Amino acid sequence: MMAKPLTGTRVIVYGVGTMGVIVTRLLVEKGAEIVGAIGRSPAKVGRDLGDVAGLGISLGVTVEGDAGRVLARGADIAVLCVSSYLDAMHQHFATCLESDVNVITIEEETVFPWTTAPEHANALDALARKNGVTLAASGAQDVFWLHLVTTLLGASHRIDKVIGHCTWNVDDYGPEVAGHLHIGQTKEEFDRFVATSGWPEFVARQTLEALVSKLGLTVKTILSGVTPVTLEEPIQCRSLGREVPPGSVIGTIDRTTLLTIEGPEFVFDMEGRLYRDGESDSNRWQVEGEPDLELSCRDANYRFTTCSTLVNRIPDVIAAEPGLCSLDKLGPPVYRHG
Amino acid sequence: MMAKPLTGTRVIVYGVGTMGVIVTRLLVEKGAEIVGAIGRSPAKVGRDLGDVAGLGISLGVTVEGDAGRVLARGADIAVLCVSSYLDAMHQHFATCLESDVNVITIEEETVFPWTTAPEHANALDALARKNGVTLAASGAQDVFWLHLVTTLLGASHRIDKVIGHCTWNVDDYGPEVAGHLHIGQTKEEFDRFVATSGWPEFVARQTLEALVSKLGLTVKTILSGVTPVTLEEPIQCRSLGREVPPGSVIGTIDRTTLLTIEGPEFVFDMEGRLYRDGESDSNRWQVEGEPDLELSCRDANYRFTTCSTLVNRIPDVIAAEPGLCSLDKLGPPVYRHG
Repeated sequence: MMAKPLTGTRVIVYGVGTMGVIVTRLLVEKGAEIVGAIGRSPAKVGRDLGDVAGLGISLGVTVEGDAGRVLARGADIAVLCVSSYLDAMHQHFATCLESDVNVITIEEETVFPWTTAPEHANALDALARKNGVTLAASGAQDVFWLHLVTTLLGASHRIDKVIGHCTWNVDDYGPEVAGHLHIGQTKEEFDRFVATSGWPEFVARQTLEALVSKLGLTVKTILSGVTPVTLEEPIQCRSLGREVPPGSVIGTIDRTTLLTIEGPEFVFDMEGRLYRDGESDSNRWQVEGEPDLELSCRDANYRFTTCSTLVNRIPDVIAAEPGLCSLDKLGPPVYRHG
Repeated sequence: MMAKPLTGTRVIVYGVGTMGVIVTRLLVEKGAEIVGAIGRSPAKVGRDLGDVAGLGISLGVTVEGDAGRVLARGADIAVLCVSSYLDAMHQHFATCLESDVNVITIEEETVFPWTTAPEHANALDALARKNGVTLAASGAQDVFWLHLVTTLLGASHRIDKVIGHCTWNVDDYGPEVAGHLHIGQTKEEFDRFVATSGWPEFVARQTLEALVSKLGLTVKTILSGVTPVTLEEPIQCRSLGREVPPGSVIGTIDRTTLLTIEGPEFVFDMEGRLYRDGESDSNRWQVEGEPDLELSCRDANYRFTTCSTLVNRIPDVIAAEPGLCSLDKLGPPVYRHG
């Protein structure tokens, strides 16, 4: 019988929200030795991680609030599922790296942070190198928007344009994300917000930059824009616990357009919205060139595959050179049986 | 401006049939220095390769019949598009390897020859090592049936069963392939042939073995079978230049089932047949497990992508360790711009 793939790997679960809880179960099933758990909610701190994660068993690991103290006890890697922006995550990452603990995270900007957050990226890269450990991000985008696409392009003789489109379910990520996307507001309120406050670039941009870097092409221009999505019928928003009236915002399309000096163009539309019955997470890429190519996935299950891909990446991150390892520097994630 | 990706790479085109002719154009467009061409047809030997390939320009390279003589002049790599079976190709490969020339080929068995042709594989591996060069096979299967699948599985937490299905157009490969698939015979004639002569395992088996090897799983059992495909209406066969009557064989489904010691099962159906109007090469993979996953490509254009993937693989093969490099030992092929 094959040993489980993470047997002997000492892991700290850093963040015990929706995603951290899924990751905990997957880690246990892959044989990881969970040596610490870090949370901030008073409802979770002090309880056993197995209880918090709803596993029905005790893991003998108490969720603690003091990250530095947990990290000081040592581990091979910390798995961070806390927030989506590098600005909010910098100190969490630094605490791990300073404790000589590798980091894998679902925080999306770290996929390729060199142009959108160069100061954070360079500081964390230097800190990781100094401490001989690695910081990397992964998630569903690692498979569905980056490595499936670069692999498909391995069959291309000439790329003129690559067009990606995905849908993800806002209701999979709780009220904070629904609020962030202005679900339930009018189109006018949404447009006014964007006009005055701007709109943050999201993971689509970082993923396209990682993709172009992997292809050895050079960015000329990157354009980002957002369009609200509305529906001419009422739809239920589970995470807000209310019905969104017809004509109101049910999501957004974040479009990133990337032009290269060498010629090939890349356009990626990330459509996050409420789903009608029967809809599922989609992923579609078209390549215009010689030849024209196309790839699609009907049910990409982004919430779960973000967790499963993250766990499959753990050995790669432990083995990687010290530093901030953006996703262009790694091959595709691999399945790890057991 | 980026240099073309094969600038400075000295290539011999070995085989100037349908596939060799496509490959020749792609090599020229990628900047390769074609230093020799080998053919056997008296209608081609003695002519310029650019003329034979219909490029409308002279390449200053004459198609020659004596392979040893062309190879003796030296090259970085020979691109072999001659035949589909290792038995028929062994001597061609050996001639290249003995001349210290790397080999990349569309011959399918070499994708993973270790169990179906171990004597050929071990002898060629030893010869390649002795001469410090590499022998490898690539083609559409490298992208569509191997690396897209392993990449998708990078998002899997648990695989129970992987089910692949592809269709390829018999009429893309000329009368020899149409004859090999018994196009136009009755179902009874087909079944009688298989009962008495057997049916050779095709690239589906080698590709599944490479896939399972890449996943670190262990083969328990491999079963292969063939089923004729018929159609209840007449259909035109271009490569045979005639109409196939209703109920006759228009193609086959080659099914390979692979069971592993660790548990996951793999089934791959390769359906090669005549197409009705509007059909195109398809590629679909379903994963049963946690989570269920699915990937499909609508127009995989296998004839062309076999050539384009082969050309994209050239730098990988030149850089690889000496020996027979089965496809489980390489990462995905990558697009090479220019």
